[in-house]
Amino acid sequence: MEEKQYLLLPGPTPVPPVVLRGLAKPMINHRGPEFKELFTELTEGLKEVFRTENDVIIFPSAGTGGMEAAVANFISPGEKVLVVSIGNFGDRFAEICRRFGAAVDKIDFPWGTAADADVLADRIKKDTKEEIKAVFVTHNETSTGVTNDLPKLRKALGDHPALFIVDSVSGLGAMELETDAWNLDVVVAGSQKSFMIPPGLSFVSVSKRAWDAAEKCTNARYYWDIMAARKYAEKGQTPYTPALPQLTGLAESIKMIKSEGLPNIITRHRRLRDMVRAGVRAMGLELLAADEVSSTAVTAVLAPPGIEADTIRSTLRERFNVVVAGGQNQLKNKIFRIGHLGYVRELDILAVLAALEMSLAVCGYQVNLGQGVRAAQEILLKS
Amino acid sequence: MEEKQYLLLPGPTPVPPVVLRGLAKPMINHRGPEFKELFTELTEGLKEVFRTENDVIIFPSAGTGGMEAAVANFISPGEKVLVVSIGNFGDRFAEICRRFGAAVDKIDFPWGTAADADVLADRIKKDTKEEIKAVFVTHNETSTGVTNDLPKLRKALGDHPALFIVDSVSGLGAMELETDAWNLDVVVAGSQKSFMIPPGLSFVSVSKRAWDAAEKCTNARYYWDIMAARKYAEKGQTPYTPALPQLTGLAESIKMIKSEGLPNIITRHRRLRDMVRAGVRAMGLELLAADEVSSTAVTAVLAPPGIEADTIRSTLRERFNVVVAGGQNQLKNKIFRIGHLGYVRELDILAVLAALEMSLAVCGYQVNLGQGVRAAQEILLKS
Repeated sequence: MEEKQYLLLPGPTPVPPVVLRGLAKPMINHRGPEFKELFTELTEGLKEVFRTENDVIIFPSAGTGGMEAAVANFISPGEKVLVVSIGNFGDRFAEICRRFGAAVDKIDFPWGTAADADVLADRIKKDTKEEIKAVFVTHNETSTGVTNDLPKLRKALGDHPALFIVDSVSGLGAMELETDAWNLDVVVAGSQKSFMIPPGLSFVSVSKRAWDAAEKCTNARYYWDIMAARKYAEKGQTPYTPALPQLTGLAESIKMIKSEGLPNIITRHRRLRDMVRAGVRAMGLELLAADEVSSTAVTAVLAPPGIEADTIRSTLRERFNVVVAGGQNQLKNKIFRIGHLGYVRELDILAVLAALEMSLAVCGYQVNLGQGVRAAQEILLKS
Repeated sequence: MEEKQYLLLPGPTPVPPVVLRGLAKPMINHRGPEFKELFTELTEGLKEVFRTENDVIIFPSAGTGGMEAAVANFISPGEKVLVVSIGNFGDRFAEICRRFGAAVDKIDFPWGTAADADVLADRIKKDTKEEIKAVFVTHNETSTGVTNDLPKLRKALGDHPALFIVDSVSGLGAMELETDAWNLDVVVAGSQKSFMIPPGLSFVSVSKRAWDAAEKCTNARYYWDIMAARKYAEKGQTPYTPALPQLTGLAESIKMIKSEGLPNIITRHRRLRDMVRAGVRAMGLELLAADEVSSTAVTAVLAPPGIEADTIRSTLRERFNVVVAGGQNQLKNKIFRIGHLGYVRELDILAVLAALEMSLAVCGYQVNLGQGVRAAQEILLKS
């Protein structure tokens, strides 16, 4: 395999050289003073990115592990939950809830659209007995490139006491998220997205109300037990051996995030999204998501009629070493997804758009070479 | 922190430079052909180390996650299990079983001793209704430096149909383990031990009988679901994003293991243990475990009367940059534990014994400098 790849996935995302060097550090004692110092620094850094005073728990796991922790700690078997799904990862949240014995009520919105807060508000109003213990929402739906309006959805709950639990695995750090100001009880994030470090860590923020629920929760959990994590955190440790490379890498990535500044990072992601969308449109292709709900982390593009999305993807990879993601489930082979979060810069996007134009041409699609690139350049120059 | 440390823990263990470089590789698509190739190579390599034709599942987690998978997939709530505990990690297995709703029967042996196969056989014989669904056993008890005789314990079950589930997180690769020849249904291992890679992966082997049990198991699981793992493995993938650095590191470490050869590795670990024990004894210190059951992965040493174990440890660390582990639970501050598994060589042991002599002297313990080192040298020269 050629190492020089343009990796434009919605995760794992490219890892900056300084972070790669951060991974390759000698091991330390996870029960010793060096670790305590690292752990404290990381926890404080994460809280800044989460925009919260809540506790943030670090799990050695994939993002899906953080989602499991967000279920197993707060929902007891038989309890009613409401899952708002706009795609594959909303469905996954519902499936995890089911596996852990919850009575799952699910609101589905068509793939490619965002959740309608009014529909949620209606459903919540009908729960006059306040039986719903938690509402699960996807912040950024990776399978469709759609971002939900979290503040609006949160407000749809009104005074209902359900916990508001958010999967922001691909959202946090690539778009605005205000854990405290938006009153989010639990937020799940992952390492291999805008944190620019490899897969292997998930992060879960926990509000006061969520801690109270966790104390009463009867679901089976040991690895995901946040109460154990809190107890160990008091002495600067984790309940079991943490994934050290990802943690020493995270220390570097948090420095980078602080240096660029969260508001600048969010602006950059917005610009990258706008460049991708303008470029793809100028090639005559259609986008899955409407502009108003379009993700700054990933863009889903419909394959033109008569051409399979996976043929475009394999051409991109084999001819130009550009790797983009395919469609999932009902969108399999109908879309391809360009990730533009994390360690991605404007010129990367121009290169990828150029490769996409050439790949489309190779696949027999009529395209004016340079036209998509030009549309993106115009956005970059105006910004 | 000074990077040149002698890390003599029972995990994390030192990571060889070639493996560190293996960690620091660019990300790849975990749904693409590069990953499939890597995944297939690793799975085959792991099966060789496990000495098995069974499937081996890789989880992005700490070793404790592998233990949780070994419970959640095979034991349904209310089912009876028998846990054989000789220390902290046996207790952990019992606790995970309890959390997942099992009716736990536990046989405890004094910390520092091995399990008595006759006691197990007696207990098994009394279960005439064959209610016990699984027997959980620790191969190498990290908290005490004691190794159980797995073939004997396995035979104690006779024809009883209970699954035989083994925690060999700190055992596999540092001592003999024959998954197939010893008829072990489930074996759990971890990355940060003799595999010489950082924490972040656990490995679980699954026999035909264990697969059958998993299919009937009703316990809550999504992240640990081995059936999902098997389904994805068929296409060379994992159900969710894998910890890529540890996997690319593992590829390097498996090459090293093959090059040294498993029998040579086991002989080396035996020699390291013998050197440590001879050296420590020559200093007049007592060992927790008897020779016959002593671990080739970690050695627990009793602090001499009047000196706290943690004072010796902090002297080792602060004066000589040598990191050893402390005692856990009932052994806290009474013992220190020298890890000698993974990327550890004979001269490392001599250096550490020399540092230990000096630290003891600093702590006010009467010791002839060089005497412990000499005892270890004699073993090395004879080997």
